[in-house]
Amino acid sequence: MAVLGKCSIQYDNPVYVVGSGSVVGQMEAQGPLGTLFDEVSEDKDDMFGEDTWEKAESMLQQKAIELTLKKTGMKPEDMRYLFAGDLLGQSIASSFGVLNFHIPLFGLYGACSTCGESLSLGSMAVAAGFAEHCMCVTSSHYASAQKEFRFPLTYGGQRPLYASWTVTGSAGFVLSSVKKAKTAITGITTGKIVDFGIKDSFNMGCAMAPAACDTIVSNLQDFGRSPQDYDAIVTGDLGEFGREALIELLKERKIDAGDKLLDCGMLIYDLNKQDVHAGGSGCGCSATVLSAYLLKQLGNGIWKRILFVPTGALLNKISFNEGQNVPGIAHGVVIENV
Amino acid sequence: MAVLGKCSIQYDNPVYVVGSGSVVGQMEAQGPLGTLFDEVSEDKDDMFGEDTWEKAESMLQQKAIELTLKKTGMKPEDMRYLFAGDLLGQSIASSFGVLNFHIPLFGLYGACSTCGESLSLGSMAVAAGFAEHCMCVTSSHYASAQKEFRFPLTYGGQRPLYASWTVTGSAGFVLSSVKKAKTAITGITTGKIVDFGIKDSFNMGCAMAPAACDTIVSNLQDFGRSPQDYDAIVTGDLGEFGREALIELLKERKIDAGDKLLDCGMLIYDLNKQDVHAGGSGCGCSATVLSAYLLKQLGNGIWKRILFVPTGALLNKISFNEGQNVPGIAHGVVIENV
Repeated sequence: MAVLGKCSIQYDNPVYVVGSGSVVGQMEAQGPLGTLFDEVSEDKDDMFGEDTWEKAESMLQQKAIELTLKKTGMKPEDMRYLFAGDLLGQSIASSFGVLNFHIPLFGLYGACSTCGESLSLGSMAVAAGFAEHCMCVTSSHYASAQKEFRFPLTYGGQRPLYASWTVTGSAGFVLSSVKKAKTAITGITTGKIVDFGIKDSFNMGCAMAPAACDTIVSNLQDFGRSPQDYDAIVTGDLGEFGREALIELLKERKIDAGDKLLDCGMLIYDLNKQDVHAGGSGCGCSATVLSAYLLKQLGNGIWKRILFVPTGALLNKISFNEGQNVPGIAHGVVIENV
Repeated sequence: MAVLGKCSIQYDNPVYVVGSGSVVGQMEAQGPLGTLFDEVSEDKDDMFGEDTWEKAESMLQQKAIELTLKKTGMKPEDMRYLFAGDLLGQSIASSFGVLNFHIPLFGLYGACSTCGESLSLGSMAVAAGFAEHCMCVTSSHYASAQKEFRFPLTYGGQRPLYASWTVTGSAGFVLSSVKKAKTAITGITTGKIVDFGIKDSFNMGCAMAPAACDTIVSNLQDFGRSPQDYDAIVTGDLGEFGREALIELLKERKIDAGDKLLDCGMLIYDLNKQDVHAGGSGCGCSATVLSAYLLKQLGNGIWKRILFVPTGALLNKISFNEGQNVPGIAHGVVIENV
């Protein structure tokens, strides 16, 4: 194991991503990756059999864990730790989504970057020998997120075109020291908070782009790599305006990431056909796209190595209404076909 | 390093707690530990120079980190990671409290158990060699917590006698692989969520007692210890009714912890003289008591070894109002004079 630069780790032994499972809502199923998700909501409101949006999101996490365990042939008691998080206040989607599995839990909050945070801490635990297997799970739900951060949907509030659409989805990942997969985490770059002075809580792409830039630059410096060393650098949920901002910010740092830059929020929806404005967002966005698409691209050998960079905007209704900025954070995870 | 039982780790090399700093409000300064805190609010509303309760709590975290760095003679850039959390929605107290330090951040949420969670993950990072030094910080503020979980103070809501009083306070801890202190973390026991079916969000002591019991029993089993192997088993914020419930629950498991059981929520206030009902609570309760009192008892050799068990109640206003239970979680940290 090598500690690199200011904020990266390169693992001596790969931490295998031995399986994952994803569950999404109907909007996500209608997008370009629709056929790749493991399970799709059966009702148009994405309630998953529950009577509140918050419980529906908890059910998303529960289903994601169940799917992941089933696909890997493992049991809850095989998981030494669970690293879980979501966007709701006091992480209630996770608390009620994971409680029936009785796995020792580390609750996380990194806004929409939480998938990257969970894979970072999970891979650290496995790489250090603290766990043979652990589970990472994150979620978001369009309706619970709108209620939490903006207005309940029934208010019919209007959103600007640079706003993103919170993904209804959850994905779980089993990380393991046992070689039972071709895909593995080989390093991480941990993000710090970057405050670019953005005041508009709808403009999350631009609030997060500086953090994504900071983490990508740190990763390239710490690992001594250039964008060409990755088949793709995949941000979490910058959306089309945030991605443009990131390209500009990287150019200022003399980095031309060119066509390497993908964004889960732009992969999950068809921005021309689906009315999602700038793209998808939420903890569930990067998680479900990683499970359904990115890991398959790596597993099939189409890609050899990617830098996965979930991005988070750090705000809540109170901080926004009290006039605080919207700072961002991004956690980088290097995932390879090994 | 030994992985013990289902949920514990014993470190081969102690992870030194090389310093800590605490800052509290005036109510806490009037309690039995009042003279032991490093800094006390200068105004009776505990605003710390800010104009909102949430910003005041962020300032608590900022001050705790500054105090800890000053006392240890270290700089922000010496900290490889920051493990931070609080009780507010989307952890905004942490986001805005830590952003000026530019330290790679893992945001955590474990309700009032977050201090234990941060010391667990921080010590894992140091023990594994991922960090030479890291900082752990948590906070709570009476006024921001009441607004977040119950009613804004200006409503003048009444609270039952078994309710606890959220501590206004924050403490930071520098963990290190370098032997520069007599106190060290030698092991951890990671908690899982325990749902005892409690529906009353004021009765957090009884909601958390089953989780505390589960973690204490796991710790004793995994380490092959009895309560007599500890000079104190210190829960986070059960309060007097929760502590009684814990004693009963431990008796059912044939464990007589007797006078070993202390509770930070009962140590921080004088329950006979101060109008705090069942005792103190909040992420800042266990953190400030650990910094101001428990670590000193260990450092002075009065105690040789303690089990520190911050306890958390997993709820928010929505989950409570939608009829969900209040499950609990507790994270155990073994701290010794080494």
